[in-house]
Amino acid sequence: MSKDIHTGFDETQYPHINRGLDGIVAFSTTKSFIDGQKGELIYAGYNIDTLAENATFEEVCFLLWNDRLPNAKELETLKADLIRERNLPEVVLNYLTGTDKDAEPMAVLQSAVSMLADFDPTKGAYDSNLFMSQAISLTAKIPVIIAAFDRYRNGKEIVAPLSDGSTAKNFLYMLNGVEPGSQAEKTMDLCLILHAEHGMNASTFTARTICATMSDMYSSITGAIGALKGPLHGGANTAVMNTLLELETQGEDADAVAFTKDKLAKKEKIMGFGHRVYKVFDPRGRHLQKMSKGLSEETGHEEFYEWSMDMLNTMKSEKNIDPNVDFFSATVYYSIGIQPDLYTCIFTMSRISGWTGHYMEQAANNRLIRPRALYVGEKNLDWVPVEQR
Amino acid sequence: MSKDIHTGFDETQYPHINRGLDGIVAFSTTKSFIDGQKGELIYAGYNIDTLAENATFEEVCFLLWNDRLPNAKELETLKADLIRERNLPEVVLNYLTGTDKDAEPMAVLQSAVSMLADFDPTKGAYDSNLFMSQAISLTAKIPVIIAAFDRYRNGKEIVAPLSDGSTAKNFLYMLNGVEPGSQAEKTMDLCLILHAEHGMNASTFTARTICATMSDMYSSITGAIGALKGPLHGGANTAVMNTLLELETQGEDADAVAFTKDKLAKKEKIMGFGHRVYKVFDPRGRHLQKMSKGLSEETGHEEFYEWSMDMLNTMKSEKNIDPNVDFFSATVYYSIGIQPDLYTCIFTMSRISGWTGHYMEQAANNRLIRPRALYVGEKNLDWVPVEQR
Repeated sequence: MSKDIHTGFDETQYPHINRGLDGIVAFSTTKSFIDGQKGELIYAGYNIDTLAENATFEEVCFLLWNDRLPNAKELETLKADLIRERNLPEVVLNYLTGTDKDAEPMAVLQSAVSMLADFDPTKGAYDSNLFMSQAISLTAKIPVIIAAFDRYRNGKEIVAPLSDGSTAKNFLYMLNGVEPGSQAEKTMDLCLILHAEHGMNASTFTARTICATMSDMYSSITGAIGALKGPLHGGANTAVMNTLLELETQGEDADAVAFTKDKLAKKEKIMGFGHRVYKVFDPRGRHLQKMSKGLSEETGHEEFYEWSMDMLNTMKSEKNIDPNVDFFSATVYYSIGIQPDLYTCIFTMSRISGWTGHYMEQAANNRLIRPRALYVGEKNLDWVPVEQR
Repeated sequence: MSKDIHTGFDETQYPHINRGLDGIVAFSTTKSFIDGQKGELIYAGYNIDTLAENATFEEVCFLLWNDRLPNAKELETLKADLIRERNLPEVVLNYLTGTDKDAEPMAVLQSAVSMLADFDPTKGAYDSNLFMSQAISLTAKIPVIIAAFDRYRNGKEIVAPLSDGSTAKNFLYMLNGVEPGSQAEKTMDLCLILHAEHGMNASTFTARTICATMSDMYSSITGAIGALKGPLHGGANTAVMNTLLELETQGEDADAVAFTKDKLAKKEKIMGFGHRVYKVFDPRGRHLQKMSKGLSEETGHEEFYEWSMDMLNTMKSEKNIDPNVDFFSATVYYSIGIQPDLYTCIFTMSRISGWTGHYMEQAANNRLIRPRALYVGEKNLDWVPVEQR
């Protein structure tokens, strides 16, 4: 088909329908850079290894929102702001403690984040002077939402937030009802740093697409949560943990090498391996692997780490495929007492920093995002009354 | 900058950052076709004029979901299904009648739609056998949500849904507490038909992007609502009505020609004119104009129609710009008793049919949607301890 006389649509100008928008550059960004060949990840100038070794999650939030690290005073202010915003409107809390206990945690998180807009003192205004306070409010409240719903569904009392301490510490406190040890807090904080930002994935792209209509930050983040909820994007670490728990049920007979080879022979997907961008071991995975090893020894669940290494080595020797970020995050989260079906919520708690950074970047240089669709249906059919169909 | 030795990213391969994805064809579709030069709009084979003259909204829903018109039995089944789904889970109703009365109706609608996922008997499963029942449930419940919140915020009792009749009739009944006359029902039905589907706009694109992660239909539609909420996408007819109401406050002195010329002289945007796609009078606008004329006579608000025509003629003679679909829908909605700040919700009530059609189409031929971003920030900066910053 060349130029369509009837419609003026010239398909020869569009030789290829690019269903994934692969390779199309739609944005410039200062938020992150990924070199999948070298296994390199940079957030706003800083290598992920530099940040993992030196930064706190709060510093990373500031970095992703301002493209520089905070000075001492700015960091104190941000920490205080985040602590002050650790509260939920009563209507949101009523929803969290009144909905179906079997509801999908990501669906509940999505609804609660959407509801926050009703009570935002800025009314969710699209105003660059207000974006920072909206980002702080979302970053502070998302962990509170997750912890409150998890307590409720497990029949436990909701725990009031701490009036001090880090986001990581407060979350584990509100989730478990006891203050975490410094090792657990540090682990949680590092997990938040490692998942904070990762270029133009489907959820970040969704956040920017909604922002581009000049819609409010709450709507944008609500949409991003919906995208992350999809199994092609989030959720792989839940599947990894379920695999390890399945091995555990086999007791003494558990054999991760045979399990992996059997799955491969059946051509079943093994979760936690391979990545569309990274062709080598994901740099975040190295940090998580180290943590996983330490924690599995500490908690006496050394078999999870051993099985993980058996799976990793088998996948490497059989398929030459490396694990992705989800592979070791599964055991790390499990070790600090987080239920597997909450893992994507934990991802959200971290990625909110990157999403809101991208929202502000999009708003600063905005254009409505709207690709085309090629119509392949019929045209101008005659009407047939219902009784003659 | 050519090929970057450090990163391997070759910017010369991407001479242009396409911020709006303009002209990029990302999908094939059988849902709709627009010829902006000719002012033509087709839904799944049928010209919008054919549908406006012959169809009901329920037939259009079936058409957009199945790419063909229903036979008599199929249409009866669909109508019965839509009636049966006119109910809300108690938790959703509690939210709608407990949140801030001043909340933005679109924000409330977004939250309520998101919450529906918790109570969907299919648990929002991503399963092509369940998509149709999810689409029916959303199409039936969205009008109920809008009416319930509007009653609540106006201090009125919530009205139980009718156990028969069209979507249009039931909505006006639940909104106003009295059964609408046949003319009002017909008007509402035609409005639902005219806004049901319109190609790859920002909200439909958002719905497909979320769907592409294999996320559930509720998440996808929640995201689409967030995109439609943005003033670059939805909301123009609210602004049009506010303009006409502003003229009304001027009483005998109201002069729509002078008003329009004054706005043009001040280079202020006049809402309801111009469209990125249509270069001629939007075909939907013609139907709405006819309705607007009839209704303004019926309701004794002839001045609204007269002012509209004054604005239209002034814009045409001064700028050669035609009105868009929002221009006459403003007065039409006003005439049937809908508050201006609900107009984008009414749009949602209609567009849910197109969005869910696109969701099913995306799922049937899916690929994760993820364009690229060009990193323009610094790399591998050295860490500086906070006290030295």
